[in-house]
Amino acid sequence: MLFSVQVEVSLREGVADPQGATIERSLPHLGFDGVRGVRVGKSIRFDIDATDEAAARAEVDDLCQRFLTNPVIEDATVSLTAVDASGAGR
Amino acid sequence: MLFSVQVEVSLREGVADPQGATIERSLPHLGFDGVRGVRVGKSIRFDIDATDEAAARAEVDDLCQRFLTNPVIEDATVSLTAVDASGAGR
Repeated sequence: MLFSVQVEVSLREGVADPQGATIERSLPHLGFDGVRGVRVGKSIRFDIDATDEAAARAEVDDLCQRFLTNPVIEDATVSLTAVDASGAGR
Repeated sequence: MLFSVQVEVSLREGVADPQGATIERSLPHLGFDGVRGVRVGKSIRFDIDATDEAAARAEVDDLCQRFLTNPVIEDATVSLTAVDASGAGR
């Protein structure tokens, strides 16, 4: 079965986010007020082939832990959707 | 009203994604088979203060267009959730 996966990699709470801070500091100069708490992370999308949803989720979790994140400073949030192999939708 | 916003910035279809391609090429060497179509984007989260949801969405769309994305090569997907100002949840 094919699954469509989105992994959101975000910095853990308390970890400094200079990129987010720079965006937040710049916004008032560009006319955007009322924006706060800007945090920048990564969004990684891919398809994975696995026997069932549990197997797919286990493989994605392992992948996040070992390769896609630095677990010391980053968290991963996984969303997983079965893709209809007939091509009728996803 | 306060809204919690997530903006996913992804490369448009057809735009080369060397970072995604590098991840995809590396995975079989690390024991992960069956992963394909890796695309890497950004996930930007922030809170925005606006009079109502329509105003918040308009401001976020403008922000994406002018500042958070390069509209020539990137698309933005916005998710917006009202934050309960009483602090009882979000």
